[in-house]
Amino acid sequence: MRYDCIIIGSGPAGLSAAITLKIRNKSVLVIGNNTVSEKVSKAHEINNYLGIPKISGSDLSKKFLSHADMMCVTIENHQVHAVYAMGDFFSLQTTNNDMFEASSVIIATGVNFGKPYPGENEYLGRGVSYCATCDAPLYKNKKIVIIASTKKEEHEANFMSEICSEVIYIPTYKEEVKVNDKVKVIYDEPVEIKGKLKADTLVLKNEEITADGFFILRESVSPAQLVPGLKMDGNHIEVNRKMETNIKGCIACGDIVGAPYQYIKAAGEGNIAAISVVEYLNGR
Amino acid sequence: MRYDCIIIGSGPAGLSAAITLKIRNKSVLVIGNNTVSEKVSKAHEINNYLGIPKISGSDLSKKFLSHADMMCVTIENHQVHAVYAMGDFFSLQTTNNDMFEASSVIIATGVNFGKPYPGENEYLGRGVSYCATCDAPLYKNKKIVIIASTKKEEHEANFMSEICSEVIYIPTYKEEVKVNDKVKVIYDEPVEIKGKLKADTLVLKNEEITADGFFILRESVSPAQLVPGLKMDGNHIEVNRKMETNIKGCIACGDIVGAPYQYIKAAGEGNIAAISVVEYLNGR
Repeated sequence: MRYDCIIIGSGPAGLSAAITLKIRNKSVLVIGNNTVSEKVSKAHEINNYLGIPKISGSDLSKKFLSHADMMCVTIENHQVHAVYAMGDFFSLQTTNNDMFEASSVIIATGVNFGKPYPGENEYLGRGVSYCATCDAPLYKNKKIVIIASTKKEEHEANFMSEICSEVIYIPTYKEEVKVNDKVKVIYDEPVEIKGKLKADTLVLKNEEITADGFFILRESVSPAQLVPGLKMDGNHIEVNRKMETNIKGCIACGDIVGAPYQYIKAAGEGNIAAISVVEYLNGR
Repeated sequence: MRYDCIIIGSGPAGLSAAITLKIRNKSVLVIGNNTVSEKVSKAHEINNYLGIPKISGSDLSKKFLSHADMMCVTIENHQVHAVYAMGDFFSLQTTNNDMFEASSVIIATGVNFGKPYPGENEYLGRGVSYCATCDAPLYKNKKIVIIASTKKEEHEANFMSEICSEVIYIPTYKEEVKVNDKVKVIYDEPVEIKGKLKADTLVLKNEEITADGFFILRESVSPAQLVPGLKMDGNHIEVNRKMETNIKGCIACGDIVGAPYQYIKAAGEGNIAAISVVEYLNGR
């Protein structure tokens, strides 16, 4: 099935876009990003969402989801690994190797992505990967390093340990690490990725590790890495006032297009984004 | 008293800006524009204001006003006639000749202003006026014409009939007209204002009227006439993504800066506008 629009991100911007697209009778899939809703639900009392005063982040989040539910918006939880512009449609690949197709895409992922390590962008695809499931076959019987920003990557480490000859796991989170015995855990701070034609060394604060592959697993990847060719403005996606990016049919909204990082601003932009998608779909 | 910010317009954009400015501890006055809230309250069921599904325009309007009330936002009803940039502050003049001062101004008046008649802009200030109260003294014992878009201008016609030698009243609304005997009512359609150095003739569909002055009384005036020097983009105020206009300290948001004309979009922009005002005030 090819959707009229896939929205990446289930925060206020994504859900606002989804309900407006539903009203306009477009087929829509929201690909959830737990990060965003977690961020909203952790917020303190919110007083500047016009019409809903004095509300906790978690209650506001519930109102958003219940509104989306009432409008029959489908939300699925996947982590999107890459968005490819195929000409008249977009192909989305998840970290589980699922593929989705849509005529247009709205990027509403929020700003919760890490700053790249020195060398990371340079060696991406040449020894550096963001997706364990996708690239595991390339590292059969080889030595790999995983830098993990959340506890859920422990599952990936266990999976890789069945394929690779050696797995080194570097958690950048604080919770206790529980991985199987074949995974070696090192508590240290990543500093830089080095190499020649390919990445071969991870510099940590206290030591250096050589390996064949380096997996950097974050909650979300930066938009420039998510959508090849997407034009950025610093850490934000560059958009015009219609929320259009430099790629036709690819629209962005919410925190990822810039401050203020406020729910009402994100929801407002979601609406603009949806209308721009409708215009784009009608104009093709 | 000089306010930190005066917001012109009490629709979703204006009220959203007001609550955010209150949270930021700025002194704020909202100058109400009944038109805008009337427009909202006349809307059918609204389903795309994220978090508040299936709501009538009048109920949503009540929620907005009650939220503003809870945040101690002061709303006063005046019709602003002109906004003058005085360097480090703005001076606002109402049609009742009241003056207000503020360090910054947010224009959130909506798009409910009429299209100018041919000749109107050309002769503005030279025989054409928007403000009966302000310019009445100029037309003592002279003949004037009033083109009125709402019933409430009948009051102005009666007032002018006590000063001028002759008052001709042309209603462009449908309700029954009740004015005093000294006012002559003509039911016809205004087409053009003509003149030489000064306006001297109103061309109607069926006749032409010569007079000394022509008052065009609409519910709201266009932003370009409201704020001298304000840069427009067609019928909208030109703003950047921070809602800044070409005049420093003058911010605009909501329908007046462009489509989509949606409540959630306007509320989102109101938030952005407020943050830009805070930045402006802090940066001075």
